Amino acid sequence: MPIDRIAIFGTGLIGASVGLALRSRGYAGNIVGWDPNHDETVIAEAAGAITEIAPDPLKAARESQLVLLSGPVFTILEWLDRLAPVLQSGQLVTDVGSVKGVICQRAQTRYDLVHTAGFLPGHPMAGKEVGGAVNADANLFDGAAWLFTETAATWSMHPASRKLAEEWREWTKKFGCRVIDIDPARHDVLCAWVSHLPQYLSTALSALLEDQFPEKDEMLAVGGRALREMTRLGGSPLSMWRDVAHTNTAAISDALFALEQRLAHLRENLKTPELRDEFERANRFRASMGPPKK
Amino acid sequence: MPIDRIAIFGTGLIGASVGLALRSRGYAGNIVGWDPNHDETVIAEAAGAITEIAPDPLKAARESQLVLLSGPVFTILEWLDRLAPVLQSGQLVTDVGSVKGVICQRAQTRYDLVHTAGFLPGHPMAGKEVGGAVNADANLFDGAAWLFTETAATWSMHPASRKLAEEWREWTKKFGCRVIDIDPARHDVLCAWVSHLPQYLSTALSALLEDQFPEKDEMLAVGGRALREMTRLGGSPLSMWRDVAHTNTAAISDALFALEQRLAHLRENLKTPELRDEFERANRFRASMGPPKK
Repeated sequence: MPIDRIAIFGTGLIGASVGLALRSRGYAGNIVGWDPNHDETVIAEAAGAITEIAPDPLKAARESQLVLLSGPVFTILEWLDRLAPVLQSGQLVTDVGSVKGVICQRAQTRYDLVHTAGFLPGHPMAGKEVGGAVNADANLFDGAAWLFTETAATWSMHPASRKLAEEWREWTKKFGCRVIDIDPARHDVLCAWVSHLPQYLSTALSALLEDQFPEKDEMLAVGGRALREMTRLGGSPLSMWRDVAHTNTAAISDALFALEQRLAHLRENLKTPELRDEFERANRFRASMGPPKK
Repeated sequence: MPIDRIAIFGTGLIGASVGLALRSRGYAGNIVGWDPNHDETVIAEAAGAITEIAPDPLKAARESQLVLLSGPVFTILEWLDRLAPVLQSGQLVTDVGSVKGVICQRAQTRYDLVHTAGFLPGHPMAGKEVGGAVNADANLFDGAAWLFTETAATWSMHPASRKLAEEWREWTKKFGCRVIDIDPARHDVLCAWVSHLPQYLSTALSALLEDQFPEKDEMLAVGGRALREMTRLGGSPLSMWRDVAHTNTAAISDALFALEQRLAHLRENLKTPELRDEFERANRFRASMGPPKK
């Protein structure tokens, strides 16, 4: 029996976008939504991202085949704890959390056992600098990677849960995603470089400019695309990124430190031939990404 | 008599885009083009950005009312020197150089005098990470700022040159630009923060990732919009940015150093309440930019 009852916990940008993506790709079942901020569920329901609002999240979880946990990392950890005792084998929990080591570790003793629900750890590499169901988009995941960080534990989940896991993987492909399997620890290091570093860098640059220019009119009038682009992620909400900072600290710290050193190196070589080498490396990196996308 | 003979020296991305912008906004006169790389003039002519290729740049300059200098800062400085003795009052030289202090200083003793051509220092805040006439775009300047850094010296240029200067300002408005007048020294400091810093930062980040990931497949498969966006400027050519680094060194060095310190501060506060303050400052900065553009 294919999935026809899904609970989405956290109907903000990502959760509501998953709901819209499901429905736009032909999902005809129920989607029951819950969010700590009730308004988010109202907006998500009005947008068609969920078919009903859950008055009681635990009851909604019990009655669903699949529960999607969408929100900051600590919120996901909390739900993993709360849901474990109320769910049973043949159900599946999956998530979209940005840090996977801590989440997989937390799930390990309470999921994927003979009598428990299965847990499929996931992470779509998509987002916006603005949160909320109001910014949800059925095509948010189109062209992005959807990472799964299964371990020996999750691969041994109950066969009925496994069937749901395989079906969920198919849905993410229908959303337009490249599905990639990766080890949780490797995931966290890789994301520290390609996702977390760009985020904290843009935050630091934006905060610096905020302090540097108490009067902004002239600066904003002069600034062009480079300024807008490099500070776009400065609009990202603390709620999500505080949890990332707390749960992937060492890898992020390493990446930030390496960038500090790199900037100092470039600064000390603004007038030496080493500047050429840095531009050549940077040009090579960009060339490896292929032609620019719109 | 309105301008009907323009020479563009440097028919790469910016020079050729100016030619296309002129013609798409109804300019019906001649545009004679010259470039150190002859192929660039051939491409520019084929694209309709120039109406003819100058076999002899000095002759072309002598026969034009307006000469636009487009290229790296040192190339512009060289042309200012070479053109001064062959031009005369009633002619106008203008430029698109990224650093204005050094350019205005060089022009000061040889332009804007009774018997010399006028010099109108300009700088459109637009560009791409890919150079060349092949990437030229008639709408490149639409919505951007076109800065002019006139000084007491330039304001006293010959009245016939001044007429051309006023006409050129009108053309930049027709390109879709906000015209902003600003002091050359202030220009250089402001651009160090809003243009040069984002550029060298993106170069450093791209070069760091190039070294960090000799094998790129997994990293590129996982990376999303944040990675693409924050490294886009890593594709920018050395030729232009080496000259900027050499001619605005102190201001760029200050901005880079401030960012290094800011990144270290954020790194040391990944798990403290100060992270909240940094995100609040960054959010405030972004909010001051208004709603995101596409």
